Formats: sequence, C-alpha cells, structure tokens
Amino acid sequence: MGTHPSNHEHLDDQMIKMEVNLDDIPGEWLGYVMDLLFDAGANDVFYTPIYMKKNRPGVLLQLLCSQKHVNTMKEILFKETTTLGIRYYPLTVHRLERMFRKVSTEWGPVTVKEGMYDGQVVQSAPEFEECKSISQTHNIPLKKVYEMVWKALGNEN
Amino acid sequence: MGTHPSNHEHLDDQMIKMEVNLDDIPGEWLGYVMDLLFDAGANDVFYTPIYMKKNRPGVLLQLLCSQKHVNTMKEILFKETTTLGIRYYPLTVHRLERMFRKVSTEWGPVTVKEGMYDGQVVQSAPEFEECKSISQTHNIPLKKVYEMVWKALGNEN
Amino acid sequence: MGTHPSNHEHLDDQMIKMEVNLDDIPGEWLGYVMDLLFDAGANDVFYTPIYMKKNRPGVLLQLLCSQKHVNTMKEILFKETTTLGIRYYPLTVHRLERMFRKVSTEWGPVTVKEGMYDGQVVQSAPEFEECKSISQTHNIPLKKVYEMVWKALGNEN
Amino acid sequence: MGTHPSNHEHLDDQMIKMEVNLDDIPGEWLGYVMDLLFDAGANDVFYTPIYMKKNRPGVLLQLLCSQKHVNTMKEILFKETTTLGIRYYPLTVHRLERMFRKVSTEWGPVTVKEGMYDGQVVQSAPEFEECKSISQTHNIPLKKVYEMVWKALGNEN
Amino acid sequence: MGTHPSNHEHLDDQMIKMEVNLDDIPGEWLGYVMDLLFDAGANDVFYTPIYMKKNRPGVLLQLLCSQKHVNTMKEILFKETTTLGIRYYPLTVHRLERMFRKVSTEWGPVTVKEGMYDGQVVQSAPEFEECKSISQTHNIPLKKVYEMVWKALGNEN
Amino acid sequence: MGTHPSNHEHLDDQMIKMEVNLDDIPGEWLGYVMDLLFDAGANDVFYTPIYMKKNRPGVLLQLLCSQKHVNTMKEILFKETTTLGIRYYPLTVHRLERMFRKVSTEWGPVTVKEGMYDGQVVQSAPEFEECKSISQTHNIPLKKVYEMVWKALGNEN
Repeated sequence: MGTHPSNHEHLDDQMIKMEVNLDDIPGEWLGYVMDLLFDAGANDVFYTPIYMKKNRPGVLLQLLCSQKHVNTMKEILFKETTTLGIRYYPLTVHRLERMFRKVSTEWGPVTVKEGMYDGQVVQSAPEFEECKSISQTHNIPLKKVYEMVWKALGNEN
Repeated sequence: MGTHPSNHEHLDDQMIKMEVNLDDIPGEWLGYVMDLLFDAGANDVFYTPIYMKKNRPGVLLQLLCSQKHVNTMKEILFKETTTLGIRYYPLTVHRLERMFRKVSTEWGPVTVKEGMYDGQVVQSAPEFEECKSISQTHNIPLKKVYEMVWKALGNEN
Repeated sequence: MGTHPSNHEHLDDQMIKMEVNLDDIPGEWLGYVMDLLFDAGANDVFYTPIYMKKNRPGVLLQLLCSQKHVNTMKEILFKETTTLGIRYYPLTVHRLERMFRKVSTEWGPVTVKEGMYDGQVVQSAPEFEECKSISQTHNIPLKKVYEMVWKALGNEN
Repeated sequence: MGTHPSNHEHLDDQMIKMEVNLDDIPGEWLGYVMDLLFDAGANDVFYTPIYMKKNRPGVLLQLLCSQKHVNTMKEILFKETTTLGIRYYPLTVHRLERMFRKVSTEWGPVTVKEGMYDGQVVQSAPEFEECKSISQTHNIPLKKVYEMVWKALGNEN
Repeated sequence: MGTHPSNHEHLDDQMIKMEVNLDDIPGEWLGYVMDLLFDAGANDVFYTPIYMKKNRPGVLLQLLCSQKHVNTMKEILFKETTTLGIRYYPLTVHRLERMFRKVSTEWGPVTVKEGMYDGQVVQSAPEFEECKSISQTHNIPLKKVYEMVWKALGNEN
Repeated sequence: MGTHPSNHEHLDDQMIKMEVNLDDIPGEWLGYVMDLLFDAGANDVFYTPIYMKKNRPGVLLQLLCSQKHVNTMKEILFKETTTLGIRYYPLTVHRLERMFRKVSTEWGPVTVKEGMYDGQVVQSAPEFEECKSISQTHNIPLKKVYEMVWKALGNEN
C-alpha cells in the first residue's frame, strides 16, 4: 500500500454557479445535456424538480464551473436546452486536500480517495467504478465489495 | 347562517388509481393536461418528480377516478401525453360527509366546507375561491381573509 | 410571414434572486402568491420541495426580479406569506435576443418565439397560449398542434 | 457476542397502504402527524412532494399498516389533518427474518440488525440510535462510529 | 420508408408493482441498482424523493415487472439494497400497439416508434439513441436532430 | 395579556449561504447532521432532493449562518458528511421586528410570535411547541388548538 499527495486544501473564489429554469424540454434530452456539460469541464451538474407557473412541473438545472469555462457552458446551455436566459453568480469553494491510497482485498487492490481537513483524514471513499467493476467481474453484490474495502481500511489503520 | 346536508360519509370501493411515467414530454404540456383531466371528471390529478433511467428527470402522473370514467381518462392520456402505456388498480376511498355553512364576515358571507367523521365535525375549510375573491375585491392579503373567517367560525361555535 | 426585432442579446447584472423558506403555510395559498408575484413584475417565480427541521415538508420559494422591483416583492412576501425573513443576492443574467415570427398552419398563423445567440437562431418556441387556443377551438390534441407548427417551421427554413 | 432468532422470513398479505393528498395544511403540522401515526402502530409513514391543481405545492402522505390498525389510522388522519377522504388498498409484504447480534467496539458493544434471505445474511445494519449515542457520548463523528462497527463486523465474520 | 407491425394493443393484468423505502443507502449505489433491475427484466424502475422519520431524506424505489420476474427482482433488491422488506401489489397495464417506421433525414434514416390507440396513431417518438448518435457524429445539437425528424415526419404524412 | 419588544426590523448583510451536494451518504445520517448544525448556530438548514450524475438520487444540503459561524459549520460538514468540498456565498437578509404576546385560551396562555413590517403586524404565529404540548396534555387534535388560538387572537384585536 502507498499514498501519494494530490492537490492541497484551499479556497477557490473563482467559481461560478449557473442556473436555468426549464419547463419546455423533455427529460429525455436533459439526461444527455448533463453528460455534455460534464464532458466540457463542469465541476458539477445537478437537477432539482421545481413548480413553475401554469401548473407546470419543471426542472432547475444548476452547474458549478470555473470562470474560464463560463462561455463553453453558456454555449452548450443555449444550443442544447430551450432556455432564453442563463443566470449566474460567483461563489467560493473550500476544497479538501485529496489523497489516493490503495487497499488490498481478496479481489485485488482498490483505490480509496481520502479527504484531508486541516491535516486530518476526514473522508475515505472507495472508488465507485472500481468497486462496481469488481462486483460485476466476481458476481457479488456491490455493497459486499464496499464492506470488504471498509474492513480492509479499518485493519490498515 | 344556515347549514344544509350534503353527501353522507361512506366507503367507495369503485375507484381507480391510474399512473403514467413520462420522460419525453415538456412540463408546459403537463400543466394543460391536468386541466383536461379534471374537466373530464377526474376526482384528483397530481404530479410527482421521479428519477428515470439514463439520468432523466421525469414526472409521475397519478389520477383518481371512478370506474365509469376510466375510458375517458385513458383517451386523454393517450392523445395528450406521450405515453405508450397506462397502469391502474382499484382502491377504496373513505369519504367524510360534507356540510356547507355560511359564516358572516365584514365583507359578507363566506362558505365553509365541513367534514363530518362519525357524526362529529373534524374539518372546517373556508372556500378558497370565495376568500380569494374577497382578497382581490377589498385589496387585503388572502391570509387576513382566512384569519377573519376562522375568527367568525370560532365565535359562532 | 414576417419577423421583427425584439430586445438585443445582453448581460443584465442588475438582477436579484430572493428566497424564502416556508413550513407554516398551506400550499393552497402559495398557488395564489405565485400569481401575485408575477403580476407585480417578477421575472420568474418557482417552488422547490425542501426538508426542514422537525420532519417538516416545506417549500422554498424563489423569485427573480430587477433591483427596482425589490421592495414590491418584499411587501407581497411579507403580507401574503408567513415568513419573518427574506434573503437575497445579486446575480447576472445572460439573455438572448428575442425575435417573433409567424408561421402558417391550416388553423391560421401561430407565433414562434426565437432566441438568437451570437447572431444564430438557437431557440424556436411556438407560443403556448396560441397553441392551446387552437387546440381547444378545433378540438385536437395540443401535441398535434405543436407537431404541425414544427412541420411548418421546418418547411419555411 | 451472541445471536438470537427473531421473526422468520415470511409473506404478509394483510397489509394496507393508505394515501392522502394535502394542499391546505402547513408542513409544521405534518411533522407532528408523522409521529402520531408511528406511535399508533403504523409500520411506515412517509411524505412525497406533489404538484396539485391551481399551482399548489402539496404533500402526498402514505402509510403502511396492518388491517387491524386501519381504523386507528383513519381516526388520526381525519382528526389531525385537513383531508376529507382517505384512499387505501391491500398489498403484500415480503419480510426478511431478522437477527440481532452484538459486536464489540472500543466504546462497548453495538447491536447490528441482520436480515436473512433464504437462510443467508444479506443485511447488516448497525442500530442508528446506539451509534448516535456513542457519537455524542465520546464526541466523535457518527460516520466514524459506523466505520468502527463495520470493521468490527468484518473481523468477526 | 416502411412499417412493420409490432405487438398489438392489449390489457396486461399480470403485472406487479414493487416498492421499497430506503433511508440507509447512499445514492451512489442506487444509480447502479437501477441498471441491474432493468438488465434483469424490469419493465420500468424509478425513484421518488421521500421524507422519512427522524428528518431523513429517503428514496422510494418503485419497479414494474411481470409475475414471472418477481423472484428475480426480489433477489436483487434484497442483495443489492439495504431493505428488510419489499411490498407489492398487482395492477393492470393498457399498452398501445407499437409500430416502427423509418423516416429519411439528411443524416440517414431514423426510426420512429409509433403508438396505435384504437387503430389511430397517437404517438410518434424518434428513437433517442439514434438521434443521440447522429448528434454526436455530426456535431449538431440533439434538439436540432429531433426538429429535423419531426419535419421529415410531417412531410411524409 | 402583554407585549414586549424584541429585535428591530433590519437588513443583515453578513449572512452566508453554504451548499453541499451529497450522493454517497445514507439519509439516516443526514437527519442527525441537521440537528448538529442547528445546535452549533445555523440560522436554517434544509435539504432538497437532486438528480446527480450516473442516475444517482442525491441531496443538496443548504444552510444559512452568520459570518462568525462559518468555520464551525465547515468543521461539522467535513467531519460528519462525506463531502470533499463546500461552496458558499454572501447574501442579505431582511428580518422583521419580532414581538411576542400571550393570548388566553381555555387551556391557559399561548405565546404568539408577531412579525412587524414597517410598523404593521403582518405575521401572527402561535408557538408550535406550546400548541403541541397542549395537544398532548389535553388529548385534542393539534389543529383544534391552533383554531382556538386564532379565535382568541381575533377577539383580542
């Protein structure tokens, strides 16, 4: 097992939150738009159900991106959704330092992402895609894979 | 002030719940579909936000109607939404006896709908449309109108 | 068919987002409050279901308005809802240039609102109220009306 | 550590699902109603945000109870909410056999609820209230307590 | 262009709705569970946000399947989620006859799924995956692809 | 009955909104985290269901706090949830002056919180915990207690 440092804990005050209200687009397209926004560099994209005028169930699209991605995000939103306006505002993000370590399981090593807050490990998240892959390869429930990684993690500490 | 009896408390076991999942229709149309279904005799129609496959924000349309309205509801759902299937099942409804009384306020009488459970008044609901009308005519907040009706109700009991 | 220019594409940095959390107001009143806020000049008003303390299903009311409407919005929110506080913050809105064109259908002309992004038409939205009106007058499903407008639009391009 | 058998895996076809749509009650009361229903014997109670007529954000109350509790549930719903009708239908519940075991941690033993499916342990859930109590007594994050229980569980298997 | 018949319009009264309430499972796993259920033969799977006891944001998992898939669904739910119980009830599904036709676009043919209600075409849905593929291959917005298919559809009728 | 002044109506521009997206934490823990945040000085904490990538039902945690509580809130969020980042931005809160008065009912006095907007009483909210206590002590529905307080309030004005 080994660890290697990643980006340091820091405040990022160059981030932008964008929001779009949508009541005239099918959900089918929105599943696809989320992928496009992530591929183009969005830090996060998520949808919230909202109640709009005239009894319309709508969707609030929110995304987080850096200043430098603003124009790219706007272009996708205008071309791929039906909106006539995009609203946005700046915000600050406090990010933990991230470390990646490998833990051994009976199915091989699994990466665990750790979050360091003020020099202390506060998060330990097994990588989802690796656990899913083990689950499918070995035909065992995903939750069993997580349980084994947690156990392995516990024994190493 | 006077009261007049309405329908008696009873169990209705001839009711149907219909459900449709929708991920390929804009919310704009759904606001309109709700009106059509109510106009055609639905007892209730409501939407729930749901998470469908491929990251799609969708809508679950549910409606309650009597057996005799099933075909009418189906026709509207198939013609006005994008669904290829409608699911449904029977259920029982326990309905309270409903009484309507008038209470006096400084802006004139307001109807209050009462629900009788086992011979006892358990619900007292000022009629929304009448309160709204007073609110607009006299330019006072809707909640003030309700407060006055509640006060008047209390004093009469 | 003709087109006429509308407002130009622009950034508006004089907009305000207002938010109110509500757990002590019936939904019945909130449907009415939305109308009042739109009538008084809000650019948009929408509700989100939220989970509040003590297991309470609540509603987050959000609205977008210009600086000059802030006091009007506050007055409605304080008088018509049950809140003791309103939070708000400025944001920027990027709005597309809007054009309106008429397209011919067998039931007469229908207005289509177009959005121009960097000189290019990226949005083409048939006006909902006109489509709804045709739907009701001619007794045809709303979605059929939209399909006919889209077809007409396609042939004109 | 020891285990003791609990109720066996079985199908229960004497269960009832009840549903009520509410648009004229504050969320504040609903948090309280949930407690009353659980205290009176409901197996489960939960709320879903729904879109009701006239642009109203509403709440769908659903509860699960046995046949013998139906009248008690109805009485609470009619007396404590604003509804004029309750709908319900029967359903079947497949319940796992439940076992309770104790695992040792550095803060003392913690109960783990296990679910047996066809003779195999498929669920292992540390008891929330016990973990919360340890978290508060020892001033450590709740997630750390769970991690320690999972580790202890792993080592015992 | 050609059409070929698919399954006929019919009522299917051998369908089952299953429901599970979940408050002790991360959303990360649920995204994966949805895929497993679809792969194993579920007709539909969807999630609804619910408010559960002790202020917990939970998820209601619902799925629709035929009688013959009930045991397979149960096994996945018990092994891959954290539930100790599954509830279910029978319902009827009214399914439209489905036809598939090809329409020509400048990027090649696209399949359109049609729904027949009482001998009449009421639904015309371009196949999402084909439209998405064209969108990515030709680097044009997905909504433009749909617009072109609708136009082509209109001209052929 | 008496009244006593509380804090004056004012604008507070030293408030912070914090937001965290969560898709890898069980809802069970989030119910507990909400309590911790309130106990540590948050002005408000609430959850919204969101749709995150890979078909994951997630939760958006939002909280409102003063500048001086920012670090305390961050510490709880990093230690008790699974997040690797917290975003935040400043906002302004317009707070009403709050007055507390007592009204007499047949079960004793009940506190009513009043909100003053521009010198005018616009809100009158019976204290929930007192009403709940009366409800339980006297075994009467909570809504009846509120009705009696509203009546008493009306008669005193």
